[in-house]
Amino acid sequence: MVITVIGLGLIGGSAAIDLRKRGFANTILGVDSDKINANGALSIGLVDEICTLEDGISKSDMIIVAVPADAAVTLLPKVLDLAEGKVVTDVCSTKGRICEIIKYHKNRRCYVASHPMAGTEFSGPWAAMSGLFDGKSAILCDTEESDIKAVAKVKRMYETLNMRIIYMNSTNHDVHAAYISHISHISSFALALTVLEKERNEKHIFDLASGGFDSTVRLAKSSPDMWVPIFHQNKENVVTVLDTYIEKLQKFRTLIKEDEGEKIRDMIKESNRIKAVLKH
Amino acid sequence: MVITVIGLGLIGGSAAIDLRKRGFANTILGVDSDKINANGALSIGLVDEICTLEDGISKSDMIIVAVPADAAVTLLPKVLDLAEGKVVTDVCSTKGRICEIIKYHKNRRCYVASHPMAGTEFSGPWAAMSGLFDGKSAILCDTEESDIKAVAKVKRMYETLNMRIIYMNSTNHDVHAAYISHISHISSFALALTVLEKERNEKHIFDLASGGFDSTVRLAKSSPDMWVPIFHQNKENVVTVLDTYIEKLQKFRTLIKEDEGEKIRDMIKESNRIKAVLKH
Repeated sequence: MVITVIGLGLIGGSAAIDLRKRGFANTILGVDSDKINANGALSIGLVDEICTLEDGISKSDMIIVAVPADAAVTLLPKVLDLAEGKVVTDVCSTKGRICEIIKYHKNRRCYVASHPMAGTEFSGPWAAMSGLFDGKSAILCDTEESDIKAVAKVKRMYETLNMRIIYMNSTNHDVHAAYISHISHISSFALALTVLEKERNEKHIFDLASGGFDSTVRLAKSSPDMWVPIFHQNKENVVTVLDTYIEKLQKFRTLIKEDEGEKIRDMIKESNRIKAVLKH
Repeated sequence: MVITVIGLGLIGGSAAIDLRKRGFANTILGVDSDKINANGALSIGLVDEICTLEDGISKSDMIIVAVPADAAVTLLPKVLDLAEGKVVTDVCSTKGRICEIIKYHKNRRCYVASHPMAGTEFSGPWAAMSGLFDGKSAILCDTEESDIKAVAKVKRMYETLNMRIIYMNSTNHDVHAAYISHISHISSFALALTVLEKERNEKHIFDLASGGFDSTVRLAKSSPDMWVPIFHQNKENVVTVLDTYIEKLQKFRTLIKEDEGEKIRDMIKESNRIKAVLKH
């Protein structure tokens, strides 16, 4: 099969590596408006050829749109215009807005909305890696709007990437993604800002940062190009969960200030439940 | 050398493993008021013998107090009463209160206040592991109050554990620890509570949790026995940094709500600076 990957970053590039390696695709064509990324992806062998959008679509059986969520909203209708008889999917972290924008597109049934929940804090083609998706979840949304064969193909693609497939409508997807993924990133961005502001001596941050700090602040290395449009498109859910998060922190603050040791203990114990939840 | 470890948990146990393995100690005696921990530590070979506090101190050259910060405040004066001519150190994450409590103790100079900045979210003797401290920082506080030979011995101990030694007074230690370590834990506890509250369907948490969520929420598995006394003893610094953290989150909230993409981008970019700081 010939696949075209539009957007040769961490996600598109990592998919390209394993889809070829595991025999799902014979040829991978790349499209990227950023020349440096395009040349990089070609020279490290993520793709066999760099094409224009039109060429990439016409030459391939399947198209993966792997650009940030704001670019996807603009790009996806154009891709669909040219994609009759092909299969198109995207990998964005928000699904509601994207599904809305192409809801009445004449080629809607070629498109399968998906979100592979994997990543690292790095970006660009040089961050791509084999095995990125292994054992993680891929969410397929609103599949009743897609052609059954297109869904089967996208499912097979994610199975090749060793992902567990989960079905969800796009509205629910965005609620759960806000609660579980998007809030973690804001928590981490804000933590980095706090430490950088309070701890003016950056040498101290380096000296005193232990494994705990590193892991909590890791996501603060993530790219604004990816996250600004996610927060925009998923605004309402993100604000709701942020309100709850701030409320919990304020409760901690009050209890610490008032030396309410037993109540702090109860909150920590309750939060420890996450251990069991993540293990099931 | 004979070392007595008081408190056979993650930190005490991990130190015991490597101090013996690397030839710093020939014999390690263990003291723990919790019978299950004591027997566990003995049966997995962390210590050679379980003793009473009195026996442990009288038979050893060096005593490591590795109990939670509240227990340390009660225990350390008792240990020092019996420790004339020996070297005593502790490993607590707060230093101000502990240094204050023994400031005028007759054996103050036997004691070296220290904080090895390493750990995992697990606790108890079964969580102990070789290599836990390698490459991390150990902070020695108020060393001018300690005997110079005692400081040299504790320094050698941490060098055996492959730690970088940093000197700091206990007041500054607590400020920096709040900014860099303690806030990460509150951020993580609150995140776990938020997700558990908002995402009532725990199966979804498991399904949708990717690497990013896991790493941000990891510290929420930490023990309240350790953290309640830290927040108590370092209350003022913790509340101050928590205020800044909440303020940053509120700023994110406002900007997201008002679709201020450019300003959100600036905040994320500023937080990305943590990348460079952690690399120096």
